[in-house]
Amino acid sequence: MIDNISELITNVPELGAGSLGIVDDASVVVENGKVVAIGPAGALADQRLDAGGRCVLPGFVDSHTHLVFAGERAEEFTRRMAGEPYDGGGIRVTTEATRAASRQALRASLHRRLREVHRAGTTTVEIKSGYGLSVESEALITSLAGEVTAETTFLGAHVVPSEYRGRADDYTALVCGPMLESVRPHARWIDVFCETGAFNVDQSRAVLEAGRNAGLGLRLHANQLDHGPGVRLGVEMGCASVDHCTYLSDDDLEMLAASDTVATFLPAADFSTRQPYPDARRAIDAGVQVAIASNCNPGSSYTTSISFCIALAVRDMRMTIDEAIAAVTTGGAAALRRSDVGRLSPGGPAHLAILDAPSRHHLAYRPGVPLIWRTVGADYRLPSTGDRGGG
Amino acid sequence: MIDNISELITNVPELGAGSLGIVDDASVVVENGKVVAIGPAGALADQRLDAGGRCVLPGFVDSHTHLVFAGERAEEFTRRMAGEPYDGGGIRVTTEATRAASRQALRASLHRRLREVHRAGTTTVEIKSGYGLSVESEALITSLAGEVTAETTFLGAHVVPSEYRGRADDYTALVCGPMLESVRPHARWIDVFCETGAFNVDQSRAVLEAGRNAGLGLRLHANQLDHGPGVRLGVEMGCASVDHCTYLSDDDLEMLAASDTVATFLPAADFSTRQPYPDARRAIDAGVQVAIASNCNPGSSYTTSISFCIALAVRDMRMTIDEAIAAVTTGGAAALRRSDVGRLSPGGPAHLAILDAPSRHHLAYRPGVPLIWRTVGADYRLPSTGDRGGG
Repeated sequence: MIDNISELITNVPELGAGSLGIVDDASVVVENGKVVAIGPAGALADQRLDAGGRCVLPGFVDSHTHLVFAGERAEEFTRRMAGEPYDGGGIRVTTEATRAASRQALRASLHRRLREVHRAGTTTVEIKSGYGLSVESEALITSLAGEVTAETTFLGAHVVPSEYRGRADDYTALVCGPMLESVRPHARWIDVFCETGAFNVDQSRAVLEAGRNAGLGLRLHANQLDHGPGVRLGVEMGCASVDHCTYLSDDDLEMLAASDTVATFLPAADFSTRQPYPDARRAIDAGVQVAIASNCNPGSSYTTSISFCIALAVRDMRMTIDEAIAAVTTGGAAALRRSDVGRLSPGGPAHLAILDAPSRHHLAYRPGVPLIWRTVGADYRLPSTGDRGGG
Repeated sequence: MIDNISELITNVPELGAGSLGIVDDASVVVENGKVVAIGPAGALADQRLDAGGRCVLPGFVDSHTHLVFAGERAEEFTRRMAGEPYDGGGIRVTTEATRAASRQALRASLHRRLREVHRAGTTTVEIKSGYGLSVESEALITSLAGEVTAETTFLGAHVVPSEYRGRADDYTALVCGPMLESVRPHARWIDVFCETGAFNVDQSRAVLEAGRNAGLGLRLHANQLDHGPGVRLGVEMGCASVDHCTYLSDDDLEMLAASDTVATFLPAADFSTRQPYPDARRAIDAGVQVAIASNCNPGSSYTTSISFCIALAVRDMRMTIDEAIAAVTTGGAAALRRSDVGRLSPGGPAHLAILDAPSRHHLAYRPGVPLIWRTVGADYRLPSTGDRGGG
């Protein structure tokens, strides 16, 4: 049992107050990793964790990360901050380093990052490939991701690798053919970077169609650097989520609102590339289902901190704290077409984050402070040992 | 000895490369809390801390905090994010709660925050009063601050308390007389909030003069919410630092550049009040000595994270990472007129922060990630026990 909880966010309106289903002075009874009961204080189980008057919420669902790679790009970041524009071209630098890295080295750095993800309060994580860009390397990356999470995404169509420069259609055919075949045992999702400089709308559609035929769910990177056809394509194809959505037209909003496609914002990427922030207020007011994810990757957003994303969402995207919390829990779950995670209810998994703070407001009120006191449970396999290096 | 350091920032140009005096593949020999030697690998001392290829830098000097208070204001923050403007009026809410709190409760929350400060990599901290606003309460607050740090600042002139509404001159006389007398044994510095809605330039000058006559060093809050006479006053009076400086005119810059007064930026306050960020680029290019501090307080900036301030400085204030690191080390030290802290050199104190990252760039490259692996030493008395609540 976890008791002495000041404020428990369940995300189940029937269980508490408001859309987040908030229960004050609560306790949660956990058995075998499941929530058995939620309610006011009153002991039942043997094991007891005293939350010390802290706030408990469903563990975050980070629906967009790229955790498998070698080749950090701190220097590119520093150059960008000095004025160099971001165009996604640095992905090739990471690709070179990732191809050169051993399976063991890639696994070790993935595990290190996954421990960081856990300390950040995230209990469900999606992991994309996309830094291999060859049949062999993409298969390796998706298999490593598949070792730790069920939410594995094949992103062979991240950028066109150097050896296919000027032959994007040929590379697209490789992605849709042998590469897709090789990752199929490991991937649940397929994804494409539909943006000028990456893949055009026809190539993107081809990749999504091939993925669908192979039985994969669909997701999309789009509208990050400019207005474009990505959102329309994503909705037409029935993608679970279109990610970035920094630039959204009225038509885009209308299509999204009428669809089951989630708009996933990645504000830490806008922070780290000095892009404008998406107008989340306008999207929510238009009726769009939104999510927020970290986009943890070595180029445009090297953070695992969902708390940081929440603070940006409240300060710079004009979301309320409750909207931001919904976006990183039920929103992330919707973006992964999951209904079991992102909420706390009897019968559901006991995946939760305990804040070192008495209320959820502190996630925005205390920016930069490591507020996760404990993370309980996870939807992924957390490696138990090894060093804690963040490099 | 600390060895296996990827990158050691000393801030002593003679010891290494560039203005930060960076030594690659370094080790630091420590004896009795002092740095005895700095150099390439080669063991000497008995005790060894393997930095595991991490980056080491001087512990941060946080030259502006308000760590002694009761009465958090998460709800005011949430209202502000919903559009309510910030005018500093909420200080009175914290004052009421602080006056009502016991010495023991204030000490316990101070110690909790100080442990958080230490985990954030800060090894020198200034602490202001300013939430008592009565003779008795200001004396208590400065004495509690004085128990833990030598850098204690009397800020009786934070705002005019409710019971003196409309009688700011009378309150100023109280600050300059009995209140100053009561805090004198505990305070090193005196400070005033010189801003419309707080204290005007004549009142501010009176407070600084009284403080100087009492033997205290001078500092100032100014130019936070608008252009104003504060910077001019601060330079004229020879303040060690003028803090906030969100609005700086060309005249302000010229005066600062020709003075020994440091301009201390508080970007986390600009974040949490949705103010514009100061134009640090312009100030640095004009030759102004700058510092960056957290301004940790329950109203306008409830963070202890210097890393977060660095990320904002690089992203939103156009400072280079090296300028930002200097601002939170040697800059903070200059703002406190200290030359012993903020740098690592033989004979100096062994106060340092070890990053969970291979280079200093990660402080901006990895926003929101708790990057402080270890904090070694401190200029303040760190309470050793108690709970770790951040509330």
